Amino acid sequence: MKPGLIVLLIMMSLSLYAAEGMWTPAQLPELSNVLEAKGLEIDPGSMTDLTAHPMKAIVSLGDCTASFVSPKGLVITNHHCAHGSISYNSTDERNLLRDGFVAGSFADELPALPGSRVLVTVAVEDVSETILGDLPAGLSGRARYQAIEDSEKELVRECEKDKGHRCRVASYHGGSQYELIKQLEIRDVRLVHAPPASVGKYGGDVDNWMWPRHTGDYSFYRAYVGPDGLPADPAEDNVPYQPDYWLKVQPKGVQDGDFVMLAGYPDHTNRYRLSSEVANVIDWRYPEYKIALEAWLAAIMTAIEGNPDAALKYAPLISAINNETKNYGGMLEGFSKGNLVELKQQLESVLQAWIAEHPEYQDGDLSTVEALQALVNESQSRQQRKLYYQLAYRSALLSAARSLYRLAREQEKPDEAREPGYQERDLVRIGEQMTRIEGTFDVEVDQQVWRHLVLAYSAIPEDQHVDAYDHWFGIDGNEVDTEALDRKLEQMYAGTSLGDTQVRLDWIGKTPEAFEFSDDPFIRMAVALFDNDMEIEEWNKGLTGRYQEARPRFMRSLLAFQQARGRVVYPDANSTLRITYGVVTGSEPRDGMVYVPFTTLEGIVEKDTGVEPFDMPPELLEAIGEKQYGAYIDEQLGSVPVNFLSTLDTTGGNSGSPTLNGRAELVGLQFDGTYESIISDWDFLQDKTRSIQVDIRYILWTMEQLGGAEHLLKEMMGSE
Amino acid sequence: MKPGLIVLLIMMSLSLYAAEGMWTPAQLPELSNVLEAKGLEIDPGSMTDLTAHPMKAIVSLGDCTASFVSPKGLVITNHHCAHGSISYNSTDERNLLRDGFVAGSFADELPALPGSRVLVTVAVEDVSETILGDLPAGLSGRARYQAIEDSEKELVRECEKDKGHRCRVASYHGGSQYELIKQLEIRDVRLVHAPPASVGKYGGDVDNWMWPRHTGDYSFYRAYVGPDGLPADPAEDNVPYQPDYWLKVQPKGVQDGDFVMLAGYPDHTNRYRLSSEVANVIDWRYPEYKIALEAWLAAIMTAIEGNPDAALKYAPLISAINNETKNYGGMLEGFSKGNLVELKQQLESVLQAWIAEHPEYQDGDLSTVEALQALVNESQSRQQRKLYYQLAYRSALLSAARSLYRLAREQEKPDEAREPGYQERDLVRIGEQMTRIEGTFDVEVDQQVWRHLVLAYSAIPEDQHVDAYDHWFGIDGNEVDTEALDRKLEQMYAGTSLGDTQVRLDWIGKTPEAFEFSDDPFIRMAVALFDNDMEIEEWNKGLTGRYQEARPRFMRSLLAFQQARGRVVYPDANSTLRITYGVVTGSEPRDGMVYVPFTTLEGIVEKDTGVEPFDMPPELLEAIGEKQYGAYIDEQLGSVPVNFLSTLDTTGGNSGSPTLNGRAELVGLQFDGTYESIISDWDFLQDKTRSIQVDIRYILWTMEQLGGAEHLLKEMMGSE
Repeated sequence: MKPGLIVLLIMMSLSLYAAEGMWTPAQLPELSNVLEAKGLEIDPGSMTDLTAHPMKAIVSLGDCTASFVSPKGLVITNHHCAHGSISYNSTDERNLLRDGFVAGSFADELPALPGSRVLVTVAVEDVSETILGDLPAGLSGRARYQAIEDSEKELVRECEKDKGHRCRVASYHGGSQYELIKQLEIRDVRLVHAPPASVGKYGGDVDNWMWPRHTGDYSFYRAYVGPDGLPADPAEDNVPYQPDYWLKVQPKGVQDGDFVMLAGYPDHTNRYRLSSEVANVIDWRYPEYKIALEAWLAAIMTAIEGNPDAALKYAPLISAINNETKNYGGMLEGFSKGNLVELKQQLESVLQAWIAEHPEYQDGDLSTVEALQALVNESQSRQQRKLYYQLAYRSALLSAARSLYRLAREQEKPDEAREPGYQERDLVRIGEQMTRIEGTFDVEVDQQVWRHLVLAYSAIPEDQHVDAYDHWFGIDGNEVDTEALDRKLEQMYAGTSLGDTQVRLDWIGKTPEAFEFSDDPFIRMAVALFDNDMEIEEWNKGLTGRYQEARPRFMRSLLAFQQARGRVVYPDANSTLRITYGVVTGSEPRDGMVYVPFTTLEGIVEKDTGVEPFDMPPELLEAIGEKQYGAYIDEQLGSVPVNFLSTLDTTGGNSGSPTLNGRAELVGLQFDGTYESIISDWDFLQDKTRSIQVDIRYILWTMEQLGGAEHLLKEMMGSE
Repeated sequence: MKPGLIVLLIMMSLSLYAAEGMWTPAQLPELSNVLEAKGLEIDPGSMTDLTAHPMKAIVSLGDCTASFVSPKGLVITNHHCAHGSISYNSTDERNLLRDGFVAGSFADELPALPGSRVLVTVAVEDVSETILGDLPAGLSGRARYQAIEDSEKELVRECEKDKGHRCRVASYHGGSQYELIKQLEIRDVRLVHAPPASVGKYGGDVDNWMWPRHTGDYSFYRAYVGPDGLPADPAEDNVPYQPDYWLKVQPKGVQDGDFVMLAGYPDHTNRYRLSSEVANVIDWRYPEYKIALEAWLAAIMTAIEGNPDAALKYAPLISAINNETKNYGGMLEGFSKGNLVELKQQLESVLQAWIAEHPEYQDGDLSTVEALQALVNESQSRQQRKLYYQLAYRSALLSAARSLYRLAREQEKPDEAREPGYQERDLVRIGEQMTRIEGTFDVEVDQQVWRHLVLAYSAIPEDQHVDAYDHWFGIDGNEVDTEALDRKLEQMYAGTSLGDTQVRLDWIGKTPEAFEFSDDPFIRMAVALFDNDMEIEEWNKGLTGRYQEARPRFMRSLLAFQQARGRVVYPDANSTLRITYGVVTGSEPRDGMVYVPFTTLEGIVEKDTGVEPFDMPPELLEAIGEKQYGAYIDEQLGSVPVNFLSTLDTTGGNSGSPTLNGRAELVGLQFDGTYESIISDWDFLQDKTRSIQVDIRYILWTMEQLGGAEHLLKEMMGSE
């Protein structure tokens, strides 16, 4: 056996004991022995039942996770998950982001950002057979794509006949398996409490992805429904939703070495990609995205200078870009320290050898590995266009115009034939998107930043350009007449009325002709780009359809290969409900250094400079100075724990997930990972990957110290 | 008792148990119980004898410490202490800095940077009575300064009658006590071995002051003397010096928790300054110096661009400026996290109360504290001039011209009346300085950088300007005619011959008249500035004379106060031989994080990017990959230790100091401190202050792996 293979097998056997894994509830029975051995005290079977405690208390916010913590629909999540809603309700005069907010009563609760949802998963059904069962062989990519989409739409339509629910079809293992997910969709969500950013975002972008950490990353929403108890549009006479189950808060928290688990909605991971896909990400995608995003951010920062109102509006976008670029940089650094590409190459070579002995996983002349590889090469040929053309659409007004015109075009078809996202079921959300723009948009910033993005697009190789776009701005090859561009932009912004929310809303439901005869320059541009964009979409759909064939074939061979070795394989994250379990523990991030699992209040005093993002409110600093630990002191630490580390396997979308002890009681909130975990979307490193939780004791301590939230503490503790 | 006082007394009693302290050899008997209890295995008495082992094996290099490690005068010190000599012998073609160097035989050893010295302290005598005994009361500051200087010069002259020795008078406790230090001055020093910078400076400026650390910061010199065994000028027929004592290398190193001690020449600390002096450093000096030095560095970097030869020549200066600015930044950060000013204010208020009860420490109307304070205020009024005028002299040619003209002026006086630094005893060193310039000077860089420094000087407030300097460059207030300045600079550099080493050397010994009639623009400038500079010097000397009265009075009251509390007080570092003892141990630099005491070879692989300064030579990386640990493996670590942390109390000048175990065997070399130790010149923090040592095992391992140094290993191990 070659030395490389020995290394590979050692790695595999090690990972059997690792905390790695984002398990579907259905997989839990296979893990129940392990879970009980590790410290689960409740019946593992109860965890698979989505309609029982604790799973039914755990909800999705779309891009974050949250959980019910009272019978009156009180929801706890991260501050950064509620950031949009806090920012939406903030003005220069009443700055909730800076000062924090606590609603003294139900009546004082504030509307969340339009489009905010609380989604409760109520059913999960395997629909693989329905979708894949009678797909004829030899379909073209485009036809396969359409067939799958049609089946999905049909399933969703049927499912959503149950009013107040939202359904989606999720694909697992690259399309080997499909599940229909049904969620109760609560659409009146209100902001109840957020600490000041100097607590909730303590350390800011500087500390993002860092340990030691001292962030009070928590906030509270409340879910509201109509008087009939069913989901309803936001309205004054709505009433707090009464969930069947809610989590019990455990004010004693956890200790170093304790079992913990976490349920949530991790958005995506890429742990089964080919070595060449990883290599492309390292060599091209992350470096290029990082450069493009940093330049975009710089343009935004220049544009908002001296405009505090715009600064507030763009704060969430700035945070997101900062997070993403740091992410890319960290991933590149992480990759450079490991040898993931090499390990994957070794795995692929072992797998190929195994396939040679199992010809059912051969795909004509090519192995499943080679067939997928060919497709990967093809799609990489258009990756520059994908990035820069997407950015070239990042004027809020242009993307609004595009959505609105696309809606008009789709509405000419029967509902079931429309593109997903433009069906009747999507109308409310489109309206909300059109409204939401007003809180995140400033006309001058939009124009100035878009100018930068148009120029960035114009600089990519000509063969990746989009003709209609070039034509609109008079871009010739890589040549741009910037004076003409500036005149065009001036005219467009001067001539549009799409900056007005009511105008945007009024365009919903109009006919394509109305658009085509409009004088609004952004509408005209959307119309002008349409045909070309559709061509690109067709190309993408054809490619996707072929991926929907090649990727499942590859995954089925990989799964069979692993099964033959007695391994349980969890699917990549796909925004569906998952469970991860592990232990509270530190790590050795680097030779010569150790992370200890808990930080304490005193660490805040150490870090504090009085200047954002290290500007803890003075009354809290004073309370720490006076050692006012209250009931939340950890005797071993001699202080109140602030954040803690665990081996829980998490990613984006897991933000806000409840961290539970062995009795499924709430002991913390997931909010980040250490810098060494930044490549965990691609690779889980048993020794180094650590997620970061806010300790529940810090949340409770802060709420007590900040004051005004006593009624919420009582509500959570069930002692009202 | 006020709460503040309680805190203060707690702090004081804690520090009794701390490792803090740079003890003079004479103080060791007072500490012998403690030393033996902590782990010293040799007779503590032997440590006080400078003429015995181990102290006589430990030498000064002027600005670093080193030690003899063989009977043939082999000397070990830091790579960064030999940096000037390595750089001096490097050219673009034969780059010893990059490639490292090992002399295969005595004949291959290279001359160290001109002016390099190995200084062996042979005697220390208390001369306080001679200097202070018959100073009349009521002397002016200027007269007091002169009286002390005259006594010092007389003592030095007497002392240096013993040929081959160099003597100096060192002042302790701010001038409360004086000692005459006599050193054997070996002036033929040769470079024997230096690893490549990718080992010796691994981590470079990025890792400077950082932990975890992986720097192989070692190099070897050899001391040579004349055939008669006495110090001699560098000459071919000189022979290796045979020291009476040399250190035994302990290839087993030390373990976590072991006793260690260190002897060396720490240059200066400021642990007994007034609170207001610390406040001024925080509020003015460090921020302002940092800005000025960063701008200077930027000017150098611009000037050397595209000039690899100049880059080599300026590398030591760039390193030094980088180190210093990082230092200032770190100290400001360190101060911002502590409350040293407040603690010192508390101490001063307790001391004032004590003085009120002990009127012998009252100074007329003022307490010793108040009298010193008044003087501090006065000297701060000229601090901007001090910084910027000093920089305005940083043309290598101007400062050479100044030294040469000053020498001519001083040589008109009898030798004993000359300014220290310009006496007969200084002539050799002045010649070496004039020679040394050629290795660290590039005419274009000098001109370009000096232009920047002249402009920086011109921007400070007019009342801090120096008339003659302004007049020379036509600076009017803060106005500079930059075209005229550029013309002037052009003319000066075009018209000078001081760039030539022989020309500089030829000026030594010429009369003032020869200077005054010279056409060389730099000589003319030095002459033009002379009278004004002398006025400034007189002002400074008067002030210093007053400090020489006020500071000792303050220190005597402080020492009496501390003695009354049963405390032994070590004097601030002053470049004299000191001993510090402590323990190998990690630290908790921040809440949530721990430094472990040892780094290992594997940490180098972790850090390595292949790009400077993280570009370990491939053959060493390979050896690590193959776990070729040889005899140097530490079983507990499972690898070869690279660097380690200890509580030893060190500062600049301690670089290269031998770290010794309880049997006084060499186990490492001091080379740096952690970031949290950066304010240790002002404050020793028991929990956080840690010095960083290269482990002797890493030095031996690297020498073995790099190859070619086998004969040196044998020489050190005494197994030739």
